[in-house]
Amino acid sequence: MQIIEHAEPSTVDTQATSAEAAPAAEAAPRARRSPSPALLAHLQHTFGARFSRSAAVLLQHGTDESAYAPVPPDAVVFVASTEEVALVVKACAAERVPVIAFGAGSSIEGHLLAVQGGICIDFTQMNALLAVRAEDMTATVQAGVTRNQLNAALVGSGLFFSVDPGADATVGGMIATGASGTNTVRYGTMRDNVLNLTVVTATGEVLKTASEARKSSAGYNLTQLFCGSEGTLGLITEATVKLHPHPEVTAAAVVSFPTVRAAVDCVIQSIQSGVSLARAEMLDALTIRAINAHNSLALAELPTLFLEFSGGQAQVDEQAALVRQIADECGGGAFQWATRQEERSRLWTPRHHAYFASLQLKPGSRCFTTDACVPISVLSDCIQETLADIDEHAILAPVFGHVGDGNFHCLVLVDPNNADEVNAGEAFSHRLVRRALRYGGTSTGEHGVGLHKIGYLLEEHGETAVALMRTIKRAFDPLDILNPGKVVTLD
Amino acid sequence: MQIIEHAEPSTVDTQATSAEAAPAAEAAPRARRSPSPALLAHLQHTFGARFSRSAAVLLQHGTDESAYAPVPPDAVVFVASTEEVALVVKACAAERVPVIAFGAGSSIEGHLLAVQGGICIDFTQMNALLAVRAEDMTATVQAGVTRNQLNAALVGSGLFFSVDPGADATVGGMIATGASGTNTVRYGTMRDNVLNLTVVTATGEVLKTASEARKSSAGYNLTQLFCGSEGTLGLITEATVKLHPHPEVTAAAVVSFPTVRAAVDCVIQSIQSGVSLARAEMLDALTIRAINAHNSLALAELPTLFLEFSGGQAQVDEQAALVRQIADECGGGAFQWATRQEERSRLWTPRHHAYFASLQLKPGSRCFTTDACVPISVLSDCIQETLADIDEHAILAPVFGHVGDGNFHCLVLVDPNNADEVNAGEAFSHRLVRRALRYGGTSTGEHGVGLHKIGYLLEEHGETAVALMRTIKRAFDPLDILNPGKVVTLD
Repeated sequence: MQIIEHAEPSTVDTQATSAEAAPAAEAAPRARRSPSPALLAHLQHTFGARFSRSAAVLLQHGTDESAYAPVPPDAVVFVASTEEVALVVKACAAERVPVIAFGAGSSIEGHLLAVQGGICIDFTQMNALLAVRAEDMTATVQAGVTRNQLNAALVGSGLFFSVDPGADATVGGMIATGASGTNTVRYGTMRDNVLNLTVVTATGEVLKTASEARKSSAGYNLTQLFCGSEGTLGLITEATVKLHPHPEVTAAAVVSFPTVRAAVDCVIQSIQSGVSLARAEMLDALTIRAINAHNSLALAELPTLFLEFSGGQAQVDEQAALVRQIADECGGGAFQWATRQEERSRLWTPRHHAYFASLQLKPGSRCFTTDACVPISVLSDCIQETLADIDEHAILAPVFGHVGDGNFHCLVLVDPNNADEVNAGEAFSHRLVRRALRYGGTSTGEHGVGLHKIGYLLEEHGETAVALMRTIKRAFDPLDILNPGKVVTLD
Repeated sequence: MQIIEHAEPSTVDTQATSAEAAPAAEAAPRARRSPSPALLAHLQHTFGARFSRSAAVLLQHGTDESAYAPVPPDAVVFVASTEEVALVVKACAAERVPVIAFGAGSSIEGHLLAVQGGICIDFTQMNALLAVRAEDMTATVQAGVTRNQLNAALVGSGLFFSVDPGADATVGGMIATGASGTNTVRYGTMRDNVLNLTVVTATGEVLKTASEARKSSAGYNLTQLFCGSEGTLGLITEATVKLHPHPEVTAAAVVSFPTVRAAVDCVIQSIQSGVSLARAEMLDALTIRAINAHNSLALAELPTLFLEFSGGQAQVDEQAALVRQIADECGGGAFQWATRQEERSRLWTPRHHAYFASLQLKPGSRCFTTDACVPISVLSDCIQETLADIDEHAILAPVFGHVGDGNFHCLVLVDPNNADEVNAGEAFSHRLVRRALRYGGTSTGEHGVGLHKIGYLLEEHGETAVALMRTIKRAFDPLDILNPGKVVTLD
């Protein structure tokens, strides 16, 4: 309660201060729809100690990793089963009170902010591993299982779960945002790795979206419709995901290039040559500088590829030799190699620390993360233009990306107390989205829409497509209680 | 006109004669909704020679590869552009007249039968290759391009389109049914290979479902919703699909096993060992007998795997050696190998002829094709039970399947003039679907719902999910003009 006072919905709007950042204005919340005392009492009675309205708990559940100010919900329930989720949704539907799913809280576009108030459903106690079917190479988990929890449980099975967005996100959260990450070039995005979902609908009914078969043509693809719907069409409570066999051999390499274009070309040509890269990350010179400072390293401050090869020994040797030759032709420098686990970890650690290392470039700064994704043929053009923009506007923004997918991130570092810097950062982010769309790409490759990208959907998809998305939202959630104000608005 | 007389909708029902085959009864058509003379005149005026009501053309466009009797539309228009599709849909929507898309006519579940009459839109003249982006490994095509046309156009590019359902289907048709085929274990289904669609909605509006980026989290997944919707949610007019680099080396192998289980186990263990099989087809002993007779071969009449490996030479050698070892442990016989293109074609020809060879087992017979798909861990159990069922009921049905996906087909051969045989075949097909569902699988892995599988959706997905599919259909096509009576019915 108390915390709600200092976190009125209007605080969401702090970023929409520049004229250029107009799209964010669409995210302005409607009036709160507060639960009645009777509903709160009902939930408290049902969940006991698993119901909370403490200031700290509410604040935590209204906070994500975005630059948005927190917007806490009215209450939090820690659910233990699909049935409990259904119970909460039914109770909220009766009063048209919003329901917001919460996993690890690691989303970065304002997805979980309770902009219209409501009940937050925390899934972290729904973290049971329900089944591992090694022969099928699938696992069924409750939505609150995190990717590290899942992989820890798979030790010894010879299998692993591939989706790795950086944060130790929950499986449910990754499905809801359509997450991906560094393994995507080889193993696909979360969308490619989900087979079947258990979902609670806006009326509190429970369904499974598919069977446990690896493929199906039996009716509309509900699985993919819920995947990436950010809690606005239904609440994912369980999921069957694909697993992959651990490769026999993995080799990691780091190599720098004179230009971003040369680095990107090396990856494109490798993929076109049939090399099945396990990972292919490009870090720009500024990110390398940040990494050097953070890790006391002396990497050449040039555009650099972090690569990973995997498979049988002969396959890895063959593919690595081919990529070395391609890199050479692209003007790449000497390769640093590692094959043993510890060596690989050591070699790749700087990449995994890129985010935190970058933050240290400007201590005390806040960070906007961009998420443009374009066809790989225009990726170097798009990155070059972006670097020129960074230069021209004196923005501080390390750039790195998943080259094989055409997805790259700028970490825009701003002093949160300097309005000019904040505005300049938002304006840069806005220009970057426009640039990505101009290049035939998307405003968000893997972070999702949340609050921050709503204003771009029309520009990206056009009126007819957005109207159809609204039609879907209206059909699935006519009362607009499922994470209202995100992805598409019904006003 | 004339032809419509002898092909009244009631003829669709010929298969629903057995008590066991009850689900087909749900497919019983509603009354025809015939176009007015004014609408026909309008279309004739607009399309000229590309408008037809000739008996032969109507019959052809009311006939697919299923065992259903033809149900011709009221007229056929041969469209040349997205705009023309939109024009037809708008004109039909004004009179609530059905619109049915037609590609290669190779669907096998009654998808294209005009059970409520209406206008058939033939896409075969929309067969332009709009763009090949080699660096992005994508192509954009009009929906009427067939997979062979696309691959012919890609010769010399180093790239190919992977989806191969057997028939030379159109890209639009394959997307609409969620097709797959023998390449799926390596390259995925049609769903996995589609990036962006141009779609005409039920109101004749045009939209693109996505951008040209390889991944996106920007809003609801319209692409996957239209994929597999069988023309019931919108008409796909253009598509951007993924291409793949031709592997450096491809090797094919044929090896027989004492039992179906041994053959299936060999594939499962290979995949679990990280072998990236390019194809893995299992043919049962009866199919081999049919092939031997058809091709004058002397293959051992045992469950047999047709395998394909591809990649770099070292990779292929390494993976083939591993699979040989696994096959040996599973009791497999000697491998026959081929690496040169002609030899591989020769070795694999029998597999590609399996369908026609099987028909020759019973000259003059009609063929029901089943499409069960189950988790691969229970695939051999499911096939064994199916073989026992075939045996017990004296059904004539060669069995073969895409082992890596858990998808297998029985070609049920019946004398169309023998009602007992037809009924026994339908009853067998019914038991097989039930068996697949019992094993956690799906009624259709790649053929789609059409008319034939409608009755199983409830059993497969449950009431809540089917109700949601109906909600989607109603939201997208409130007048029920898009291929009405297929996938879900709105009655």
